[in-house]
Amino acid sequence: MKATYYSRRYDALRQQVDRYLTAAVEHGGPRQLTDACRYVLAGGGKRLRAVLTLLSCEAVGGRLRDALHASAAVEIMHNFTLVHDDVMDHAPSRRGRPTVHIRWDLNSALLVGDVLLGLSYRHLLRTKSASLPPLVSSFTTCVIEVCEGQALDLEFEDRTDVTVQAYFRMIGKKTGRLISLATELGARIGGGSPRQIAALARFGLYLGRAFQLRDDLLDVVADRKEFGKAIGGDIMEGKKTFLLLTAAGRARGNDRALIQRVLRRQAHTLGPSRKVVPTVTDIYRRYGVIADAQKLIGRNTGYATKALSSLPTTRTTAMLSWLADELAQRAA
Amino acid sequence: MKATYYSRRYDALRQQVDRYLTAAVEHGGPRQLTDACRYVLAGGGKRLRAVLTLLSCEAVGGRLRDALHASAAVEIMHNFTLVHDDVMDHAPSRRGRPTVHIRWDLNSALLVGDVLLGLSYRHLLRTKSASLPPLVSSFTTCVIEVCEGQALDLEFEDRTDVTVQAYFRMIGKKTGRLISLATELGARIGGGSPRQIAALARFGLYLGRAFQLRDDLLDVVADRKEFGKAIGGDIMEGKKTFLLLTAAGRARGNDRALIQRVLRRQAHTLGPSRKVVPTVTDIYRRYGVIADAQKLIGRNTGYATKALSSLPTTRTTAMLSWLADELAQRAA
Repeated sequence: MKATYYSRRYDALRQQVDRYLTAAVEHGGPRQLTDACRYVLAGGGKRLRAVLTLLSCEAVGGRLRDALHASAAVEIMHNFTLVHDDVMDHAPSRRGRPTVHIRWDLNSALLVGDVLLGLSYRHLLRTKSASLPPLVSSFTTCVIEVCEGQALDLEFEDRTDVTVQAYFRMIGKKTGRLISLATELGARIGGGSPRQIAALARFGLYLGRAFQLRDDLLDVVADRKEFGKAIGGDIMEGKKTFLLLTAAGRARGNDRALIQRVLRRQAHTLGPSRKVVPTVTDIYRRYGVIADAQKLIGRNTGYATKALSSLPTTRTTAMLSWLADELAQRAA
Repeated sequence: MKATYYSRRYDALRQQVDRYLTAAVEHGGPRQLTDACRYVLAGGGKRLRAVLTLLSCEAVGGRLRDALHASAAVEIMHNFTLVHDDVMDHAPSRRGRPTVHIRWDLNSALLVGDVLLGLSYRHLLRTKSASLPPLVSSFTTCVIEVCEGQALDLEFEDRTDVTVQAYFRMIGKKTGRLISLATELGARIGGGSPRQIAALARFGLYLGRAFQLRDDLLDVVADRKEFGKAIGGDIMEGKKTFLLLTAAGRARGNDRALIQRVLRRQAHTLGPSRKVVPTVTDIYRRYGVIADAQKLIGRNTGYATKALSSLPTTRTTAMLSWLADELAQRAA
C-alpha cells in the first residue's frame, strides 16, 4: 500500500520533470543544435537527481515547485556529462537510442554537451531564492568535481595499481557529488537550516555511494532481461569497479592471474564473454566480494537513512527513505 | 607619447591577468587535467577580453581590481571555447604550441574544455558585487550564444547559400558576444548606471565586429612575418568570411566561377596556395571587397568610440578609444 503510494508519487514527479525538460530548450537557436539537445533531454531515465531535489526541498518544509528549475538544472547538468562521457567511452547507445556522436557526429556531441551545461545554469538561475549565490557556487563546484571524477576514471583505465580507496574517491566525484548536489540544492531552496542542508547533503552522499555500488554489482547479478544490457560488460572491458579492485586484492594463485588479466583489460583474450563472465563472477563469489558489496550497499543505505533523522518526520522523509531502499535493490 | 603610455598600460594589465591565470587552476585535481588546464591558460595571447573588463570597470568609476576575478573568468571562458573549437576544426596548433587534443588526446581536450568552463564560473563567483545574479546571468547567456555561434559556423561549412547578414549574425554570437560580455561585466562591477552599462556593452559589440572583420581581412593583407601563420588560409579552407561572401555576391563570369569553387571548399583543386591566394585576393580587390571591409572596420570602430561618449571623459575612456583604433589596424 505505502510502496504503491510512493512509487506513484515518484512517477508523478518524474513526469513533472519530463514535462519541464520538454520545454527546456528554447526556440531560436541553430536548428540541429536545438534538435540534438531536445533529443538528449527526451531520453527519459529515472530522473533520480531531479526527483531528489524536489523531495529534499519538501523535506525541509519548502514548496516543491520552488525547486523545479533547480531540479531540471541538475538533470540537464547530468545529461551534459552523459553526452561527453559517451564520446570518451565510445558508447554507441544509451537507453536504447544512438548516442549524439553516433546519431549526429563528434562536433555535435561536443557542442550539445557544452550548450547543455550553459542551459543548466540558465535554468538554475530562474530559481527564486535569496540564497542564489550559494546555489550557483555549489553547482559550479559540482561541475568541476564531476569533470575531475571523469578524468580520474579515464586515468584508471591505464593503471593497474588503483586502490579501492582511490576508486571511492573517484566515484564520489564522478557520481556521488551530483547526487548530493541534488539534495543540497533542494534543502537550500526549501529554506532548510544549515543543519538540515548538511543532513540532506550527507543523505545524498551515502545514497550516491550505495547507488554506484549497486551499479557495479548489477553488472554480474542482474537479470539480463530487466537489466537491458549485456551482463558482465564491466568485466569484458576491464572496468575498475569495486568488485574487480577488491578481488584483485584478495585472489590467489590461478584466480589472481585471471583477475590480473581482466585488470589489464585482456579479458577478451581469455575467451568469449559467456565463458569469462561466469568464471570471474565465481571468483567474486568465492572471495566474498559480492557479499561485501551487498553489505556495503546496505551500510551506506543505512547511513543515508540515518542522516534523515535530523529532519522532521514527514511523509516526504519517509519517501526519501523508501527511495534509498528501492535504489539499493533495484534491478536496472 | 600618449600611445606609449597606453601600450605600456595595456602590457601591465595583460601581465596582471597573466599572473592571475597562472594561479587560477588549484592544486588537488587529477594531475594530467590540472597540467593541461594550466598549459592552456599559460598560452599567452592579447588577453583582450580580460583587459576590456578591467578598463570598462574603471571607465564607470570602479576600482580596477574589483573586476579582476571577472576579467579572468571571461578569459577562461574564452579559452574553453578555443580548446573545443580546436578539436572541431582539427587545428594542430595555437599560438605556436600544439593544441590540447594533439599534445594530449581528444578525451583530455573534452575534459579540459569542460573543466575550464566550470572554473570560469568559479572565478566569476569570487567577484564581490551586489549584482552577482545579473553578472552570472549575462555570463550564462554568453556561454549559450558562443556555442550557438560555433554551431552556426560549422553549419555554414556545408552550405553555399550563406548571406553576409547570416555571417554577421553568426559572428556576433561566436566572437562579438564574448567581447561585449567583457565590457558589460566590467561596467556592472564598476557600479555603472544602466545607461553606462548599455553604452559599454554597445562599445564591445561594435568593437567585436570590427575585430572580426580585421581578422578576415588580415588573412589576405597581413605581412606574413608579423601574422605568424600562412596568408590565405581562409581561402584555401573555403572559410565563409565577409570577404568571400561579399565576393560571391558580386563577382561575374570567370571570377564568379572561381569564387564558387572556393566557396565549395575546392580551392585546393585550383592549384597550390601561392597561385590561388593571389588570384582570389585580386578578385577581392577588383570588386571593391577589400575596400569595403576596411570601410566597415572604420565605421564599426567609429560606432564603438561614439558609444563611449555617454561616459565621463577620462584617461580610461581615452584608452578604450585608443584600443579600438589599435585593433582596427592590428597586424596580427
